[in-house]
Amino acid sequence: MLSDRYLTDDAAALPLARELYEVMQQYPILSPHGHIDPKLILENKAFANPVELLVTPDHYITRMLYSQGVSYESLAIPRKDGSCNEVDPKMVWKILADKWHLFRGTPSRIWVQEILYTLFGIDEVLTPDNASSVYEVIDSKLKSAEFLPQALFNKFKIEVLATTDATADDLSTHKAIRSLGLAGRVIPTFRPDDVSDPLRADFKSAIAKLGAAAGVEITSFAALQQALRKQREFFKSMGATATDHGVFSAQTLLASDAEKENLFKQVMQGADLATVEKYRAVMLMEHALMSADDGLVMQLHPGSLRNYDQQIFEKYGADRGFDIPVSLTFTKELQPLLNAVGHSPNFKMVLYTLDEATYSRELAPLAGAYPSVRLGPPWWFLDSLNGMARWRDAITETAGYYNTVGFIDDTRAFCSVPVRHDVARRFDAGYLAKEVMRHRINKSEALELAADVAYNLSKDFFIL
Amino acid sequence: MLSDRYLTDDAAALPLARELYEVMQQYPILSPHGHIDPKLILENKAFANPVELLVTPDHYITRMLYSQGVSYESLAIPRKDGSCNEVDPKMVWKILADKWHLFRGTPSRIWVQEILYTLFGIDEVLTPDNASSVYEVIDSKLKSAEFLPQALFNKFKIEVLATTDATADDLSTHKAIRSLGLAGRVIPTFRPDDVSDPLRADFKSAIAKLGAAAGVEITSFAALQQALRKQREFFKSMGATATDHGVFSAQTLLASDAEKENLFKQVMQGADLATVEKYRAVMLMEHALMSADDGLVMQLHPGSLRNYDQQIFEKYGADRGFDIPVSLTFTKELQPLLNAVGHSPNFKMVLYTLDEATYSRELAPLAGAYPSVRLGPPWWFLDSLNGMARWRDAITETAGYYNTVGFIDDTRAFCSVPVRHDVARRFDAGYLAKEVMRHRINKSEALELAADVAYNLSKDFFIL
Amino acid sequence: MLSDRYLTDDAAALPLARELYEVMQQYPILSPHGHIDPKLILENKAFANPVELLVTPDHYITRMLYSQGVSYESLAIPRKDGSCNEVDPKMVWKILADKWHLFRGTPSRIWVQEILYTLFGIDEVLTPDNASSVYEVIDSKLKSAEFLPQALFNKFKIEVLATTDATADDLSTHKAIRSLGLAGRVIPTFRPDDVSDPLRADFKSAIAKLGAAAGVEITSFAALQQALRKQREFFKSMGATATDHGVFSAQTLLASDAEKENLFKQVMQGADLATVEKYRAVMLMEHALMSADDGLVMQLHPGSLRNYDQQIFEKYGADRGFDIPVSLTFTKELQPLLNAVGHSPNFKMVLYTLDEATYSRELAPLAGAYPSVRLGPPWWFLDSLNGMARWRDAITETAGYYNTVGFIDDTRAFCSVPVRHDVARRFDAGYLAKEVMRHRINKSEALELAADVAYNLSKDFFIL
Repeated sequence: MLSDRYLTDDAAALPLARELYEVMQQYPILSPHGHIDPKLILENKAFANPVELLVTPDHYITRMLYSQGVSYESLAIPRKDGSCNEVDPKMVWKILADKWHLFRGTPSRIWVQEILYTLFGIDEVLTPDNASSVYEVIDSKLKSAEFLPQALFNKFKIEVLATTDATADDLSTHKAIRSLGLAGRVIPTFRPDDVSDPLRADFKSAIAKLGAAAGVEITSFAALQQALRKQREFFKSMGATATDHGVFSAQTLLASDAEKENLFKQVMQGADLATVEKYRAVMLMEHALMSADDGLVMQLHPGSLRNYDQQIFEKYGADRGFDIPVSLTFTKELQPLLNAVGHSPNFKMVLYTLDEATYSRELAPLAGAYPSVRLGPPWWFLDSLNGMARWRDAITETAGYYNTVGFIDDTRAFCSVPVRHDVARRFDAGYLAKEVMRHRINKSEALELAADVAYNLSKDFFIL
Repeated sequence: MLSDRYLTDDAAALPLARELYEVMQQYPILSPHGHIDPKLILENKAFANPVELLVTPDHYITRMLYSQGVSYESLAIPRKDGSCNEVDPKMVWKILADKWHLFRGTPSRIWVQEILYTLFGIDEVLTPDNASSVYEVIDSKLKSAEFLPQALFNKFKIEVLATTDATADDLSTHKAIRSLGLAGRVIPTFRPDDVSDPLRADFKSAIAKLGAAAGVEITSFAALQQALRKQREFFKSMGATATDHGVFSAQTLLASDAEKENLFKQVMQGADLATVEKYRAVMLMEHALMSADDGLVMQLHPGSLRNYDQQIFEKYGADRGFDIPVSLTFTKELQPLLNAVGHSPNFKMVLYTLDEATYSRELAPLAGAYPSVRLGPPWWFLDSLNGMARWRDAITETAGYYNTVGFIDDTRAFCSVPVRHDVARRFDAGYLAKEVMRHRINKSEALELAADVAYNLSKDFFIL
Repeated sequence: MLSDRYLTDDAAALPLARELYEVMQQYPILSPHGHIDPKLILENKAFANPVELLVTPDHYITRMLYSQGVSYESLAIPRKDGSCNEVDPKMVWKILADKWHLFRGTPSRIWVQEILYTLFGIDEVLTPDNASSVYEVIDSKLKSAEFLPQALFNKFKIEVLATTDATADDLSTHKAIRSLGLAGRVIPTFRPDDVSDPLRADFKSAIAKLGAAAGVEITSFAALQQALRKQREFFKSMGATATDHGVFSAQTLLASDAEKENLFKQVMQGADLATVEKYRAVMLMEHALMSADDGLVMQLHPGSLRNYDQQIFEKYGADRGFDIPVSLTFTKELQPLLNAVGHSPNFKMVLYTLDEATYSRELAPLAGAYPSVRLGPPWWFLDSLNGMARWRDAITETAGYYNTVGFIDDTRAFCSVPVRHDVARRFDAGYLAKEVMRHRINKSEALELAADVAYNLSKDFFIL
């Protein structure tokens, strides 16, 4: 049955999977980590067309089309300089439909089809034949009031939606959203990547902006610390409960104040790679120390080599599908940090990875020992039915369920928020039902776990 | 039912798996990567006996026997110096039968039993008891005309069989095969390993041979380039559509002409390891640049530490089962190459690995972004039912089906060509059927994918 | 049915799985690798209470409780200095019951529940509600004669139990056990970690103790060799058949006598890390060379970063759940060793790993080639139902079944010995039954494999 989709392929486990899914569906969505632009909620503009809703902003979609010869120009991907090829969105939609077979077996295919089905009532697979009628159905509905972002926000039963925000953000958008009377909360997340990596082109300007925002002239590491602490407090006062750290390596380093000042001086003058790496490692540690103080949950996402392709980056900028993961290790890298704050009552850290070899080898043993450490769910390329199966399979026996947090959608595509959570819940319902079949938990435990995995784990750990 | 073997263990998925397998079986075999000696086809000599057919040339078989105390002498493995212990083939066959339990669960067991069944009509598992009768059945059939290589070639429904050939090969064997009027084509593949790795004992002689073949005196990098280009063109004119690169590391490096000349000088004089590694990285890049010109598909097989065991290598030479894989990474290594030619309309690359950690981490993200990159199927140790399951499971969600190529048999054992393709098709039929059960594709999509995976993907990408 | 637990979730495979499990259950337990204190057997004291039986000595249990905020003080974990918080064991048991949900999905949960069920007749999941009645049932039974260690040893049908012993141990406990007339044997294992790693705090004292035990003054590498050889012979005379090497890296190095003497001098004076690493690599090689002489089976367990957490180590000492695995490679590291003794008729090595990426990549290819190498079963964190499935899945196709050894329990918790073996047998019975369903082996082969996996493989390779 269509309603049983993605639950389980084991007929014996299906009735229980359905029951568990029912339990999970009673809970609203907690989205403690994502990349929805809060302006989208505040401004409440209608989505211009199906392409702006589902194609252009989604680099999972556009990179796959690119990988099979579709140019970014033909998709009207905005260039780095802000300019953009003018293309009739119907032509872009036509390309998507013509190439929809490329997505067979991918989570993008599932998410888009789930949006078509649950939001627009379209239960057909997209094909070249139905492309234009599907376009028309979506396009006409987008014009209606119930498809405005704020209406959708309420319809999606979102209890908390965390955005990702620069350290210097004045959070005026978040302030304005608070007064909208939405059914759920939109909260910021503190993301200090730009002031932590001296190799970023915007490093110095980000430091300057942070200083301006915090009212601190950042001419020393101490001043940087002060500015960061002030902004973290400000974010906290605006509802933030977490920070987010997208880094290349998980390396951390405990340094003395003198060493920190020296490093800061060096990187502001332009330092060699070894010094840059030390600075990055010190900054990660710095945020861990601050988290142990202010209680913001530290999220660590290492291991992606960003802007891998020079041509694409130069023409179209970041986040265009050309961030490629690298081999990753955590054990030695996190040792300084965990020895410093791993047992601090106030410190909390969530670890994500793109290297599945780290699941059973490093992440589960760490999360299964340190009270401060939890495993984040499968991230990015790994947020998929098989990816979730490999994750639960590899980590549960060492870390259990309770050293994880619930699902995160990590998305820029607003309408994919509810369907991503729904697919994850369907997967988990099936997984737990199978575990009962395998005699590893009993039914009442599965029912409890269903609620915990769908809601309580994130509610508690992310302090939502 | 025996006819359903390897399709699926899910009764609900079986009817569709059968239907998909039927579709796949209608297609002839495309073998774009393998190691059959073309002389075997041309000379059309009868296989001497079951041992020469199934044991001696297959290092998958002989290494397993060796691993449990069977000496290479007792198997009459030829020594490096060309000499060979004289052993009655019936005694070797007896050893194989006595030790056949060692192969339980291995693909070698499946392939040999499939050959026994489909080619010789023997449906029993080989045992010490039936060893001699099985030997006799095979041996007598091998004498008959229908078991001569050319007859088998036609019987196997091979549309294209690619061999692997040295850069200096005059391809006279291929030329002669062309006039045989076989039902399918035999084409060469350009393999420049010997002229790319200064640490190979035959490096200088290979360079000299290449020069002789191309009519170029190779005293500079420019001359080497010229010779390689000429031979690549020659191979192309003889039907080649691809090159093959068996390297230790995937490292690539873009160098100036002056740097290249300097490197060439150094390695011809005997350079240190760092220089050797630079040269190798430059040679990989060189072939990528040439591929972007001449359109030969570049196949990259890194990560095997060849001739691992000194004793075995010194006594029996290469390819004796003692090549052991190492930990592998692609992301940083291929960045220079992909930044140079990754978007070139004429450039095509197929990536293979022996390190499964790279599947979801690096290979699928690369193939899911670059139009020039495709994932090769599970290779060598990983060409197995479980290996194929892990491969599809790990890569499909990020790369889809269409950023892969079809099955390659990669074999030296002629009679295993059709059975290897058959086992892969059975696996894929079952896999696709399960995907329909899991609601990820519908039946008509599965039917289309069956044809694409069995035939069209390789046909198109390898330009067969 | 409860009696079918952990066999298989495939109804079609269940009847055969039951049959195979019956075969396996006829065999006594061979435990060639574990950490039971032999004094426990010799002294034959009653276990004080359920906590001393099941909680305090099991760092799998205590680390998980710690990971969710339970202090080691509240569990009465002994401190490094020998002191211990006094806590009513009933309070500790109450904590375990309150937090028992943390263990859902873990092997610890299975093992404890299996002990409750098979040993104490309790078939309920532990809950806060039944905590005190469960405590009472266990506690009262522990007082009875049939729950004394020697009675349990016989009841468990243990044929051989190997302990782990320091190089200087006089094995008087083992000597005394021999005269008890137990139904099975208790044998020592030679573990030279303390005299092999100069960075251990007890390195020099361990060398001194070894010298004293062997009657050799260890002032040179030659003397160290002599002492080691004498003690290995002594262990052998006391029934030992194996050595055990818990190392950080698998690196090996062949050195001349002069180099060895020089290294020894340097590390005794306090050497830098590079020298320490050389010494460790030389010591691994040394034991391999000695094994090739005396035939003790060399067990290699690399890849754990021991005593990761400074606070925990300083307060509670080693083995407290804070040993974290690292990324691991074997191929290059073992090349010197395997080139030295890999083909020696007397040399035998068992390889274990905590990095599953090495299963298909390195370990199976090595074990599938070298007659001296066998894969050890999933170890530590990986000794679990999913872990065993991933292991068999990843290695069998390359190494087969016969290049592995049987299950090892690797435990400090005496009562978990039989249940760990039982769970492994249940898993294997289900695995083999599925393999028959998948047409990869036939039923008579599965029956043979069941006996081999449960008993014969370890019996033969460990010379038990």
